[in-house]
Amino acid sequence: MSVESLPRTIDINEQGTVATIIDQRKLPKDLVFIEVVTWEQMVDCLKTLAVRGAPAIGVAGAYALVLALKNQFDLAGQSVQECLVFLKETADQVSQARPTAVNLAWAVNQVLSAVEEADCKTCADIVVAAEGKAREIRDADEESCRAIGAHGAELLKPGSRVLTHCNAGSLATAFYGTALGVIYAAHEQGKIAHVYADETRPVGQGARLTVWELAQAGVPVTLQCDNMAASLMAKGEIDAVIVGADRICSNGDTANKIGTYGLAVLAKHHGIPMYIAAPFSTIDASMRSGEEIPIEHRAASEISAVIPNGVEVYNPAFDVTPAELISAIITEKGVFYPPFKF
Amino acid sequence: MSVESLPRTIDINEQGTVATIIDQRKLPKDLVFIEVVTWEQMVDCLKTLAVRGAPAIGVAGAYALVLALKNQFDLAGQSVQECLVFLKETADQVSQARPTAVNLAWAVNQVLSAVEEADCKTCADIVVAAEGKAREIRDADEESCRAIGAHGAELLKPGSRVLTHCNAGSLATAFYGTALGVIYAAHEQGKIAHVYADETRPVGQGARLTVWELAQAGVPVTLQCDNMAASLMAKGEIDAVIVGADRICSNGDTANKIGTYGLAVLAKHHGIPMYIAAPFSTIDASMRSGEEIPIEHRAASEISAVIPNGVEVYNPAFDVTPAELISAIITEKGVFYPPFKF
Repeated sequence: MSVESLPRTIDINEQGTVATIIDQRKLPKDLVFIEVVTWEQMVDCLKTLAVRGAPAIGVAGAYALVLALKNQFDLAGQSVQECLVFLKETADQVSQARPTAVNLAWAVNQVLSAVEEADCKTCADIVVAAEGKAREIRDADEESCRAIGAHGAELLKPGSRVLTHCNAGSLATAFYGTALGVIYAAHEQGKIAHVYADETRPVGQGARLTVWELAQAGVPVTLQCDNMAASLMAKGEIDAVIVGADRICSNGDTANKIGTYGLAVLAKHHGIPMYIAAPFSTIDASMRSGEEIPIEHRAASEISAVIPNGVEVYNPAFDVTPAELISAIITEKGVFYPPFKF
Repeated sequence: MSVESLPRTIDINEQGTVATIIDQRKLPKDLVFIEVVTWEQMVDCLKTLAVRGAPAIGVAGAYALVLALKNQFDLAGQSVQECLVFLKETADQVSQARPTAVNLAWAVNQVLSAVEEADCKTCADIVVAAEGKAREIRDADEESCRAIGAHGAELLKPGSRVLTHCNAGSLATAFYGTALGVIYAAHEQGKIAHVYADETRPVGQGARLTVWELAQAGVPVTLQCDNMAASLMAKGEIDAVIVGADRICSNGDTANKIGTYGLAVLAKHHGIPMYIAAPFSTIDASMRSGEEIPIEHRAASEISAVIPNGVEVYNPAFDVTPAELISAIITEKGVFYPPFKF
């Protein structure tokens, strides 16, 4: 067992007519694959979180366009102009499946731009340009994750016990993962003694996804509640904390899954390094500090099915870790140390 | 609405023949009372956690003996000797309902000692001594909680926003609570702007019990996941953290519900006072430091119904907060400040 034996989060056949995705709603109980042949099916998978994780969502969006062209358009019988209109209309629909996920719109636009730049003479030319870009986005994401893994693994000593939060793993990307990519690369080098995965309330990405994929990859892993991380640190069980990121400001302030900031404070108190692992595209140079990052607040029902009358609920999906609590930011372009300047 | 309108966690009728307890398994969805007339019924309530919280468990044990004598023994037809044997045998059974809860055995022994010291000439004398002590234990617990509340409220400024963890409330005691007792007393004085209650994974005492009783008492309360407390502190929303205690060492090191230690570290980082509220009997002078406290580890199934093969689970029920992270320990005898020496 190794990370290479993990099933691909999202893939497409050689003909570009069938995309196969892991149904993440069914994990960890069952490993079920969904075969997707229309863009409407892919939108449904995106909306219902069968596929989630920003990079994986981008690949899904790009593949949706390829499926639409190959399976839902009469390439031989219609004009280039008609094909371009169809592609644009489909792209608009797909982009709206997860309006807040930047990667989805980005990937769909990448496909549209590739088609525009290709100066297509036939509908077949459009398909070639779109499919080429979609496969390129997928491959680039995996390549980026593997580079993040290689850079990050250099930071870990043999025998490392690593704590992670949420799922920044293979399931959140085309393959391999970001924070878990570092763990996989270090594990291949024999450096990982153990991984501790926070369950990550309220949605449970750690309990449902992270422990599943680490166990599948043969990485020794323990699940604990989020409030138990401090106890592990006090016992000297944690050598490093590694998490992903949803957005990184130009000063290094990092938004990530709620609970990350608390871990960073605990890591500092215990003298444990706190690493962020993310593709360089996560850095949003337009934001100077974490105070500018909008934080999404979600439904009370995510926390409890029964909320007594008169009780309010606080359910932010993310928090912001200030740069001064971050030991290093690991990207595919290399490792950045404070003071951060992007 | 005020704390005084809360239903009693556990009570007994004037005749001493029917005990009434809140079924805490049904909260927060339904407020259901169980009428208990035999000691076996009370043992069942203890084992199934219909009644929980160390002080409340003690009262339940004492009442079980009263019910046994009044409803399950032929006081007129049997001898004093037979009555004493019956009482002792019943006490043994009741004590074993929750073997790890010190308060249960303590309360049952208090009743036995009261009977012994009373020099009973008739079975009726035994009943009088047992019932008197049982009612005394209940009343003393409430009195102790009210004194803790009064002492603790003096530490809070008007407009205080308090964070608490687990349930050290009226539901855990005969009435009024320890950590929540401080909040109730401060609320009566108009000092409480808001309470934030951690849900307290994995058993959810905060989500199920604390928010319910605070809302019932008219105290404004917000529920959040344990991993969101740091975000609240960073936003400047928390003025004090107040929690209960399961055991306090002679140096002040305190064992309490898992997650308490992490909160103490976060409180220190944000310059927020960390208060422990507990009856003086929680202080175990035989233990010099937290390293001596045995920590109970519980079943993996408490955290998740589906644990993938190869995944371990870390589920300690308690952690230890070192004395240097504790701002004050609030007891019915007054407030103690560091350096603690008990």
